Amino acid sequence: MELSERQKKIIDIVKQNEPISGDNIAAQLGLTKPTLRSDLAVLTMTGILDARPKVGYIYSGLSFDPLLHEELFDKKIGDMMLSPVIVTPNTTVQSAVTDLFMYDVGSLYVVSEETGEIVGLVSRKDLLRSMMNTNDNQTPVAVIMTRMPNIIMCDPETTVLEAGRLLTLHEVDSLPVVEHKASKKVIGKISKTRVMEHFIQIGIEEEKNA
Amino acid sequence: MELSERQKKIIDIVKQNEPISGDNIAAQLGLTKPTLRSDLAVLTMTGILDARPKVGYIYSGLSFDPLLHEELFDKKIGDMMLSPVIVTPNTTVQSAVTDLFMYDVGSLYVVSEETGEIVGLVSRKDLLRSMMNTNDNQTPVAVIMTRMPNIIMCDPETTVLEAGRLLTLHEVDSLPVVEHKASKKVIGKISKTRVMEHFIQIGIEEEKNA
Repeated sequence: MELSERQKKIIDIVKQNEPISGDNIAAQLGLTKPTLRSDLAVLTMTGILDARPKVGYIYSGLSFDPLLHEELFDKKIGDMMLSPVIVTPNTTVQSAVTDLFMYDVGSLYVVSEETGEIVGLVSRKDLLRSMMNTNDNQTPVAVIMTRMPNIIMCDPETTVLEAGRLLTLHEVDSLPVVEHKASKKVIGKISKTRVMEHFIQIGIEEEKNA
Repeated sequence: MELSERQKKIIDIVKQNEPISGDNIAAQLGLTKPTLRSDLAVLTMTGILDARPKVGYIYSGLSFDPLLHEELFDKKIGDMMLSPVIVTPNTTVQSAVTDLFMYDVGSLYVVSEETGEIVGLVSRKDLLRSMMNTNDNQTPVAVIMTRMPNIIMCDPETTVLEAGRLLTLHEVDSLPVVEHKASKKVIGKISKTRVMEHFIQIGIEEEKNA
């Protein structure tokens, strides 16, 4: 829904002067009441304003954000991605666990030193499984990692809705973000945590504005 | 925004017959065009319908859901919580790791056998740390768990926005859901994954309806 400039002005006037009669709104705008009739009808029927007989117009405080949908679901991953923590295939399990704690992340991306391309992914779960199965913390991550082509990735143009759908569908904790669809060069990370935070941040802002 | 029954009928008629003139909409409803004038004004000004001169009314396909905000952020945890996986304080680290894999969860809640109340929480991270520090997988989880009162909890009446805020603020992967605010009896679990899925599911449904 697109509000006109005049409708936005009416909302501001009501917010600052509520309760206020239609005549007084018209006077503040230097217009006649009949001119405002259709604007006031739209604003009351959408629930943005409340018209109380013999009292006047009141701002309903309805958290009505016509852009909410786009802001929530169409945001590009390139605008919200995190920094990836990168290791090489010969990194030991012990060193990988240390990295997880040091950077406080849930997964590490394994990148080939020769090509600079992603070859694997190691999660907390992969490391826990490895440590249960063997006491040898010197195993290279290349042995235990999830490897290409079984890694679900996205790129900066992916929407948060699509990234969230991939995270849910494939039951993974994060997606490496590669330069573009055909690339294997990792430039970022998007995690379940980051996606959740995106929605919660918007919810908190909406609450403040309500 | 609350659409009237007549407005909803108009939307359905336009969806099925677009483009359709105002006269034809009125005819289908058995009403006169002047009677519909204010409804058509609201539907076009909100962007739900598009009025094209000499063509007629067209459904704009705008994903306009006035209840989106409430559906997204006000949902009660009681209506979306998961089953918790419960262990006792003397459960070994080895057995706890097995439970994590068997039930495919990220955390276990530690409940006292005597009182039936929650006394601790063990996450993947806690178990990984323990296994790094010692090779003794027979350590009881009571030794390594996060313990009360350092556990962030919620109850069935908590909104998803508040639960998400707590998960983000305290950087934890899940919150035990207790019977009510003053209780320590665990009846459910809410995880970052579940919160993210809630938002993504709504996003996917909105996309389908658009």
